[in-house]
Amino acid sequence: MAQSSTEAESAYDQLLSKYKRIANVENAGGILSWDQQVMMPDEGTPARSQQMSALSALRHELLTDDEFGELLEAAEEDDPTEEQAAVLRELRRDYERAARVPNDLVEKISAASSEAIPAWKQAKAEDDFEKFAPHLEKHVELKRKYAEHIDPDRDAYEVLFEDYEPCLPLDQAEDILADVREVLVSMIEDIRESDTELAVDSFEGEFDESEQEELVRDALSTLGYPWDRGRLDTAPHPFSSGTQFDARVTTRYDESDPLGSLFSTIHEFGHALYTLGLPDEHYATPLGEDRNLSVHESQSRLWENHVGRSRAFWQHFLPTFTEHFPEVDASVEEAYEAANQVYDDNLIRVEADELTYHLHIVIRFELERELVSGDLEVEDVPEAWNDKYEEYLGIRPETDSEGCLQDIHWAYGNFGYFPTYSLGSIMAAQLFAAAEEDIDGLDEKIASGEFGDLREWLRENVHQHGRQYETNDLVKRATGEDFAADDFLDYVESKYSEIYDL
Amino acid sequence: MAQSSTEAESAYDQLLSKYKRIANVENAGGILSWDQQVMMPDEGTPARSQQMSALSALRHELLTDDEFGELLEAAEEDDPTEEQAAVLRELRRDYERAARVPNDLVEKISAASSEAIPAWKQAKAEDDFEKFAPHLEKHVELKRKYAEHIDPDRDAYEVLFEDYEPCLPLDQAEDILADVREVLVSMIEDIRESDTELAVDSFEGEFDESEQEELVRDALSTLGYPWDRGRLDTAPHPFSSGTQFDARVTTRYDESDPLGSLFSTIHEFGHALYTLGLPDEHYATPLGEDRNLSVHESQSRLWENHVGRSRAFWQHFLPTFTEHFPEVDASVEEAYEAANQVYDDNLIRVEADELTYHLHIVIRFELERELVSGDLEVEDVPEAWNDKYEEYLGIRPETDSEGCLQDIHWAYGNFGYFPTYSLGSIMAAQLFAAAEEDIDGLDEKIASGEFGDLREWLRENVHQHGRQYETNDLVKRATGEDFAADDFLDYVESKYSEIYDL
Repeated sequence: MAQSSTEAESAYDQLLSKYKRIANVENAGGILSWDQQVMMPDEGTPARSQQMSALSALRHELLTDDEFGELLEAAEEDDPTEEQAAVLRELRRDYERAARVPNDLVEKISAASSEAIPAWKQAKAEDDFEKFAPHLEKHVELKRKYAEHIDPDRDAYEVLFEDYEPCLPLDQAEDILADVREVLVSMIEDIRESDTELAVDSFEGEFDESEQEELVRDALSTLGYPWDRGRLDTAPHPFSSGTQFDARVTTRYDESDPLGSLFSTIHEFGHALYTLGLPDEHYATPLGEDRNLSVHESQSRLWENHVGRSRAFWQHFLPTFTEHFPEVDASVEEAYEAANQVYDDNLIRVEADELTYHLHIVIRFELERELVSGDLEVEDVPEAWNDKYEEYLGIRPETDSEGCLQDIHWAYGNFGYFPTYSLGSIMAAQLFAAAEEDIDGLDEKIASGEFGDLREWLRENVHQHGRQYETNDLVKRATGEDFAADDFLDYVESKYSEIYDL
Repeated sequence: MAQSSTEAESAYDQLLSKYKRIANVENAGGILSWDQQVMMPDEGTPARSQQMSALSALRHELLTDDEFGELLEAAEEDDPTEEQAAVLRELRRDYERAARVPNDLVEKISAASSEAIPAWKQAKAEDDFEKFAPHLEKHVELKRKYAEHIDPDRDAYEVLFEDYEPCLPLDQAEDILADVREVLVSMIEDIRESDTELAVDSFEGEFDESEQEELVRDALSTLGYPWDRGRLDTAPHPFSSGTQFDARVTTRYDESDPLGSLFSTIHEFGHALYTLGLPDEHYATPLGEDRNLSVHESQSRLWENHVGRSRAFWQHFLPTFTEHFPEVDASVEEAYEAANQVYDDNLIRVEADELTYHLHIVIRFELERELVSGDLEVEDVPEAWNDKYEEYLGIRPETDSEGCLQDIHWAYGNFGYFPTYSLGSIMAAQLFAAAEEDIDGLDEKIASGEFGDLREWLRENVHQHGRQYETNDLVKRATGEDFAADDFLDYVESKYSEIYDL
């Protein structure tokens, strides 16, 4: 971390060592956040908040430092190699977005979140949207200003979206989600109207939590999780975090739902595998960092849905499952059906299945766009929310707690985050289809518990590139096609038509 | 962490908010270090080392920043209150020590440690002092330069000692340790020659590790450890760390030694209780930080030795112990003897008892003083070490692995650290004697498991002051006497004469 500069050291090298420090401060913050969610005792919050603010303010100051800007400019003019040019493109974007927003606005947004989060919790607990509304109002207002500082000439939501998807055009995302909505609304209607009864009874009952933990540890080992670079813990909201040297996963257990902890763990495994596949030698530089949220989510969903919810996987894994829970007397087919049940009356995003999930997202996406543009007033959110649930999913929330208050994202002022969840699933289908083409007998390999070729395909085609390519470029290199919804739609249509005899 | 300054904000307030950021960066580093020792997977080191270097370099830059120096001067001239003057005294000392040492020397010392630590490990494993000698040589040389930068007119060891004991004169420390050496050398000789056999058999055998964990958790609860501000984990080298909001302890288990994990846990409890007693409202400022190493060690040793190894404690705690280990059939007297056995043939500091421990320290203290002054050459360390063990403890190591290579401290270049261990124990005796005077029936209270008065006495007299008073001042306010060895010597003479019929 020495910052000494010699005449021989190029602007690029100096810049990169400044960036490494920034990335290390950020990664240190990641450890503090992991600890807060997994290990920290209840009363630790006041100190932890100050520690995390200190790191995040320092990161911001280091990134927006004049010298960083000057070195960036010098490096850009210094005839960079292709790889260097990619790094500089990423640093330029990070720098501009940070430097254009005044510190006091960053602080105001952070302060607004600190107030909004407890208000949101209370509003949700008491089913009282009024308690949250003024905070949501405040966030909309601040985030419009934020977007205006970054680029006054563009649509504010488009700018906000780039905080999470820096290099995927919003238009394209919008088209993809519209395609998905169109197909799914009618498929789900068909499923609701079909009289197919899935065989899910075998997975009902009480399942000991510590046995579930043993089971998910076995699942992680089966899939190839390297325990010397990671660990599994419990967290109220499962997540994964870390670096290529130390990528940790968390899960949670519900005695009545052993498939829940299993799929949540496989999901986090996918995230961790991505992180672990970033090149060691580029640690703490853009070439050793993940591309963005949708690519990350594509990795988790690929393992969760295309592997974990496949027939092939259950051919291999059912014996392990029944070793832990001998009372489960299910065939592979029954396990497959239980893993792919569509809940047509579920109001809650995080409990949704692979199909309805995306309509939960589309609803949030449409509403937050209108909120930011001013076409929807905060006070009208609950009704607009409920109307859309009725229109797209055929169900109407009876309370705001299980309606527009269910998710925390807006209490952080995060507008533009939700769509990345769906985009990730859609990208997962496209990547998996390409992997199936490239890997001979992938399905048979999964059925025999051989996951090495798939891990390697993902490492070569996605993980190892870090932030070298922009999203569309990365997808096109991996799959030969532009990023689109086609493979996802083929996948869900063929899978669910069969399961539900549509 | 806002750094905005207004005309109304005094130099003192601006300075304090700068210091808060520094302290928070340091505390963040503390979490990373805890995680590394307790949670981190094996392969996480490369990233973790960079994260910790980044934080420690940032801390150093923030502290030695010109603006920090200017604000410090302005605040000093601004007619500070008594409390402010204490804070400024502490910040001035921190600032001077950091600012006087050039960055490249700090980096050289850090690089020398990175090389010395694996070399020390290898030398210890292979019993080959030659492998470590050049690294020790290098550290001696660098640390002499380091001391010269801080103050060229003073004895180098005196300056180095202040890294650990910033405000206790080395002369005084030397006198105290000389007094202790004189008494202990002859006491231990007497014990070696006595034919008293202690009743220790009841605590021999195999003791299940998870049951030991339950036992030490009970011990922590009994002593009053607040679980909502802390946690217990396992670490290869037990330690405690954290802040007043989150002070964690660690321990380790040895199947053949249930008293080992118990006393190690009580020791760390004492450290944590000190940290927890620092005022919440002064978090991340000198008034909310611990005084120094000897005061910290006084708190751990007070609980470990004066409480945990007392007859009264075993009157209360033996039933809890035998609940966990019903096979132990010991009287309170036998438990007391087992807890206070003197190992007159032990060569290893960390396995030493309450008496011989201090001779292990005195030997290191005397040798490192001579090393730094040049009176002892590195190549002569092994023989000088062995000679002193023979002279003070009547035993001579047969290998350097169990001689001068046993401890890691010198591989870090830490000269002046060892004496703080003994000074802490000696201070513990003085503080406990004062607490006994102030608290009616303290012994009976301990025997009935009432520790609240003692905790409160320590909080009022030691913990709550943070760094407000310098060491001698703190001890004198708490005990009415200058810091000296008298109470410690009275304590060990009366205790061990009785146990060993001297």
